[in-house]
Amino acid sequence: MEPLAIAGIRLGTTCAGIKYPDRRDLVVIEVVAGTRAAAVFTRNAFCAAPVTVARVHLSAAQPRYLVINTGNANAGTGRQGLLDADTTCRELAALVGASPDAVLPFSTGVIGEPLPLDRLVAGLPAALAALRADGWSDAAHGIMTTDTRPKWASRQLTLAETTVTITGIAKGAGMICPDMATLLVFVATDATADEALLQQILAAAVADSFNAITVDGDTSTNDCCVLLATGQAGAKVPTTGADYEGFATAVREICTDLAQAIIRDGEGATKFITVQVEGGRDQAECRQVAYTIAHSPLVKTAFFASDPNWGRILAAVGRAGLVDLELERVAIHLDEACIVRHGERAPDYTEAQGQQVMQRSAITVRVELGRGEATARVWTTDLSFDYVRINAEYRT
Amino acid sequence: MEPLAIAGIRLGTTCAGIKYPDRRDLVVIEVVAGTRAAAVFTRNAFCAAPVTVARVHLSAAQPRYLVINTGNANAGTGRQGLLDADTTCRELAALVGASPDAVLPFSTGVIGEPLPLDRLVAGLPAALAALRADGWSDAAHGIMTTDTRPKWASRQLTLAETTVTITGIAKGAGMICPDMATLLVFVATDATADEALLQQILAAAVADSFNAITVDGDTSTNDCCVLLATGQAGAKVPTTGADYEGFATAVREICTDLAQAIIRDGEGATKFITVQVEGGRDQAECRQVAYTIAHSPLVKTAFFASDPNWGRILAAVGRAGLVDLELERVAIHLDEACIVRHGERAPDYTEAQGQQVMQRSAITVRVELGRGEATARVWTTDLSFDYVRINAEYRT
Repeated sequence: MEPLAIAGIRLGTTCAGIKYPDRRDLVVIEVVAGTRAAAVFTRNAFCAAPVTVARVHLSAAQPRYLVINTGNANAGTGRQGLLDADTTCRELAALVGASPDAVLPFSTGVIGEPLPLDRLVAGLPAALAALRADGWSDAAHGIMTTDTRPKWASRQLTLAETTVTITGIAKGAGMICPDMATLLVFVATDATADEALLQQILAAAVADSFNAITVDGDTSTNDCCVLLATGQAGAKVPTTGADYEGFATAVREICTDLAQAIIRDGEGATKFITVQVEGGRDQAECRQVAYTIAHSPLVKTAFFASDPNWGRILAAVGRAGLVDLELERVAIHLDEACIVRHGERAPDYTEAQGQQVMQRSAITVRVELGRGEATARVWTTDLSFDYVRINAEYRT
Repeated sequence: MEPLAIAGIRLGTTCAGIKYPDRRDLVVIEVVAGTRAAAVFTRNAFCAAPVTVARVHLSAAQPRYLVINTGNANAGTGRQGLLDADTTCRELAALVGASPDAVLPFSTGVIGEPLPLDRLVAGLPAALAALRADGWSDAAHGIMTTDTRPKWASRQLTLAETTVTITGIAKGAGMICPDMATLLVFVATDATADEALLQQILAAAVADSFNAITVDGDTSTNDCCVLLATGQAGAKVPTTGADYEGFATAVREICTDLAQAIIRDGEGATKFITVQVEGGRDQAECRQVAYTIAHSPLVKTAFFASDPNWGRILAAVGRAGLVDLELERVAIHLDEACIVRHGERAPDYTEAQGQQVMQRSAITVRVELGRGEATARVWTTDLSFDYVRINAEYRT
């Protein structure tokens, strides 16, 4: 299904030649006056220049334009990087007659190289000329880097008898271990909501989606997730009740769809792995165990090999750092196969069972800790030759 | 150089067919009565059965025999695993007329499969028949799994005009992120020292060697490091002074040699990477930054590709979780090339410089945090196709 347009939003995509010729690498998103926005950003201390500028602008003014380039992250670029991000906003603002504060910049690509500002600025008129209400699909292509597929999701729902639409696009395939938000994600709706409400809904959606995925444990310097509400549908998101829940659920579903699409398109990924940890004392320790499994190169290569070498999963649980873990309460399942019960190999487990599960392209690892009621879920990929190839060849 | 023999110690190695026929997989080490021992063990909560048994035996009696098998880790094997480790000790004790408490068991290999006790026990007479004072090299081969090379180191020094010798052997190439001790390491000396002194010397040596290496961040269930002192040279290690320092230094050098040999033989390793972090508030945060860099798949694949994609190192520093990190104080060096100064690309850095360093087979990443006096050093490998191949093929 093609992404659904959002009243009050137009998108324009062009090839600015930022890193490669003839690659769509520059996207401008125009939002109607009065649009409210919320955003979450990377927690990486070395956050990129556009992240800093976008934060400042977002706190100063309502956005009218978003400008996104690939091919260069404008991160680790110091004072010049900040100037370049600022100049990008000023140049776009001058072209459209807006305030520079109303422009939010986003970048993704190689870290540490100077932004090719001239080429970026030279591409702005073409991106503006391309603005279209149905430009979502092109924009989803325009923000891709090592992604092999564009990623979008749409939902419609009824608020007080009015149909409202939500559409999101995302990019990302590597350096994926979002700590707060992730990658570049843009979600928009024609419903009406103020910034505080949008922020609340976005934060909850991100916690269960982008903050629950990992490809390689590397949190990017440039992660951003933006939620825009144009208000053009004439239906307001209430602050409580069924309509609130319905809207928040739709945003969470879009974020989850996009997060899962990122994992499915993870660099070199051949399998989609869900790690579900149950019975922990709190969510933090469940996440700790889930991420220890999801980040283990040994677990990930075993999935790549379709080898039910579950001892590696058990070892990962054991080194996750949980205090007073009682091994005899631990159980581990691969889909329907119980491989570990009471902390040791389940008596009825057979290698054939494990082998059967491991052949699948989507597998759930479920760990029961047996010491509480908390749970956590993380999605990840296997570790393949292609992950190494892509990351050894990227840039060179 | 061949490993030097230690008076009071004989080693016997045989092929017991534990996992493969005709592979040396069973080693017995006999130590003379009166030998004192110290050991450090894995902190993985799922520690293997032999680890549990060795701990108990070590606290109950002075050791006379160590028995080591490869091909099966006897981990995740629950109560049966403990019985099997115990039976191994009893069977060996019966053959030699020793107390079962005087036997320490060690295992390494696949996790979660039952120990083939019959084959192990059947191999004991041959291992005993092979006992020789110059059996160190054979034993170093006998404890290998995915290792491609045996690892040993020897030192001699003079204590109160008497020459004493120290020799160590180690195995390990993957699942390497020791948290306390590592892998299987056996170090012995003919000097005299009591358990408390040995423990103190060993703990200090391990902290700077085995606990400062990582291949893949996966802490094994079976890590053990043992230090034995037979006292046969007739020279006592004093508790302070130059002779104490000399002896402790020699033990640390042996542990460092072995730890570095493990990294050089790391699964699929093509490069030896030293990560040196300076200027931290305490050693813990320096280690945190060093391990974040050393575990990053993106940093490791860049090293494999000889690509000076230093933005990945900067991003790893940024996500290491240091509170109040002031970016403008951060500097990063690749060997002699300063790549980041004041938190951004160094003005005089050139891609050619970076390229030149990255071609080397041994590279030091030096990070200055600029907020204190503490330092930490970690050794690691790159991440290559062969790491994936080895771990995708191992076991299947």
